[in-house]
Amino acid sequence: MYKPIVAITIGDPAGIGPEITGKALLTKAVHAACIPFVIGDISLIPGFGSAQKKFGCPFVNIPFLKRLRYGLSSRDTGRASYEYIISSLELIGKKKAYALVTAPICKESIHLAKINFPGHTELLAAHTHTKNFAMMMAAGNFRTIMVTRHIPVSSVGKTITVNRIVETASLADGFLKARLGIRSPRIGICALNPHGGEAGLIGKEEINIILPAVKKLSASGIHAQGPIPADSAWKEHSAGKFDMLITMYHDQAMIPLKCLAPEKIVNITVGLPFIRTSPGHGTAFNIAGKNKADPRPMIEAILCAARFSQVRLARQ
Amino acid sequence: MYKPIVAITIGDPAGIGPEITGKALLTKAVHAACIPFVIGDISLIPGFGSAQKKFGCPFVNIPFLKRLRYGLSSRDTGRASYEYIISSLELIGKKKAYALVTAPICKESIHLAKINFPGHTELLAAHTHTKNFAMMMAAGNFRTIMVTRHIPVSSVGKTITVNRIVETASLADGFLKARLGIRSPRIGICALNPHGGEAGLIGKEEINIILPAVKKLSASGIHAQGPIPADSAWKEHSAGKFDMLITMYHDQAMIPLKCLAPEKIVNITVGLPFIRTSPGHGTAFNIAGKNKADPRPMIEAILCAARFSQVRLARQ
Repeated sequence: MYKPIVAITIGDPAGIGPEITGKALLTKAVHAACIPFVIGDISLIPGFGSAQKKFGCPFVNIPFLKRLRYGLSSRDTGRASYEYIISSLELIGKKKAYALVTAPICKESIHLAKINFPGHTELLAAHTHTKNFAMMMAAGNFRTIMVTRHIPVSSVGKTITVNRIVETASLADGFLKARLGIRSPRIGICALNPHGGEAGLIGKEEINIILPAVKKLSASGIHAQGPIPADSAWKEHSAGKFDMLITMYHDQAMIPLKCLAPEKIVNITVGLPFIRTSPGHGTAFNIAGKNKADPRPMIEAILCAARFSQVRLARQ
Repeated sequence: MYKPIVAITIGDPAGIGPEITGKALLTKAVHAACIPFVIGDISLIPGFGSAQKKFGCPFVNIPFLKRLRYGLSSRDTGRASYEYIISSLELIGKKKAYALVTAPICKESIHLAKINFPGHTELLAAHTHTKNFAMMMAAGNFRTIMVTRHIPVSSVGKTITVNRIVETASLADGFLKARLGIRSPRIGICALNPHGGEAGLIGKEEINIILPAVKKLSASGIHAQGPIPADSAWKEHSAGKFDMLITMYHDQAMIPLKCLAPEKIVNITVGLPFIRTSPGHGTAFNIAGKNKADPRPMIEAILCAARFSQVRLARQ
């Protein structure tokens, strides 16, 4: 057993990021699984002193200096959140950390800071020259990657293509092999329409797009199965029949995850040369600075990063 | 406390209907909640003799006579399933039963018997001259009615209308008041698009259709709330925040129900002058006649019908 070093950025100072980081650092399981390496303004992290005393943990202190107002987007907090990320990427680049966990940032603040930054995922992909990447959402063993994300439901049918599905499932397959050590991952491919389209009676996407994609995947040796009616697919997934479900649209992934284990939802970037996870929620400005934030998704994100690192380290 | 008489049709003889009826009749809770009144070929129901001995229960025997082959659709089984339903409607018409529970039938068999029969729900509506009706799916307290059902996902946006949503939610409101005795039912209305459309950035249906419907409902005194992003709506629903969720499409309802409590899914026809429920599954031809069927949804359907009857009887 190795203890992987996991870099943790505290996210937007005005959000719940520093609070959930502090709560995670006071959690035994986190230190049992990894060495958390914190990047951000240490003075903003409640409980950091106690955690430091009890467990000792490395950090890069990037003082924020300005007056902080919780729950508000601003240029300064945007600039700060960005600096934490850049600093974490340097750490990873110098191999001082194996994995990265990012607490939530505020896109509006980043925008106010005039930083060209479409989102964590895209920034990390650009920084590492990664072309094929995807966002995986997981709650424990309930893992899924969506083929489409923030588009209207009416556009899903014309946005999914054979190639997109094949690429997404291939990324999933590669990730499960490399990061979870699963030899022959079982990948379920969801249908788009009710009852899987009932042989074309309720929509043609299954016949024209999803089934050809599954055949292509099978031909390339990937253990893919589908199209499966989405309600059955999630029932089977929750019974452990798949290592990953490929979902066609946002709610097809997020409704069941939030029903099955909302407190454990973690966002994982698939395709990067390093491991990156984050809690599956936002800055929660409405409860920031009030000691009300639930740290479980953040803790789960850290434990996930540690687990994935184990597989990677064991193979080096 | 009254003990309502609940008529139970055994469904297609070649499916799992007779088996789950038999298993339900051997269940104490069923007899504690109601007097089950069975309609069908009694000789096809496994365990009927023991149930009869132990609990005693009224029945209408409609002998099937032909040689039965499990798992196959046929003219004869179609004709038989239809006769059971017609006979149950006579019972209800004569007020010999308060509620109806229907075991699954096979549409193909009904079709082979040359009976013009679009489905249980439509037949019952036509028989009782009911114009406004809807199919509610429930698993315990997780109740939902879909605004659209078996149509392609791409067509949902152009099929939902202000009026359809208002009608559906009004039926839900009426049902919850009359059958469950809830004075001011809390009805959540789901959004269609991810994040509820993000103020029009990801789809316009929330602004153009769903929000106007919610306003209309509120104006008419119905306690409706929405549009709520569907993933949050189900999370809140599972935490008890609503008495009913109005969902826009099939999988938005069925994915979470199958995740939350698949063994309890019951189909309830809303808007009929009598109570009608059925288990939320089909004939399961693949396991028919093998004593493998899970009777829990059938039992739940009977208990549901009994519960709803209690409220009705208490008010007469």
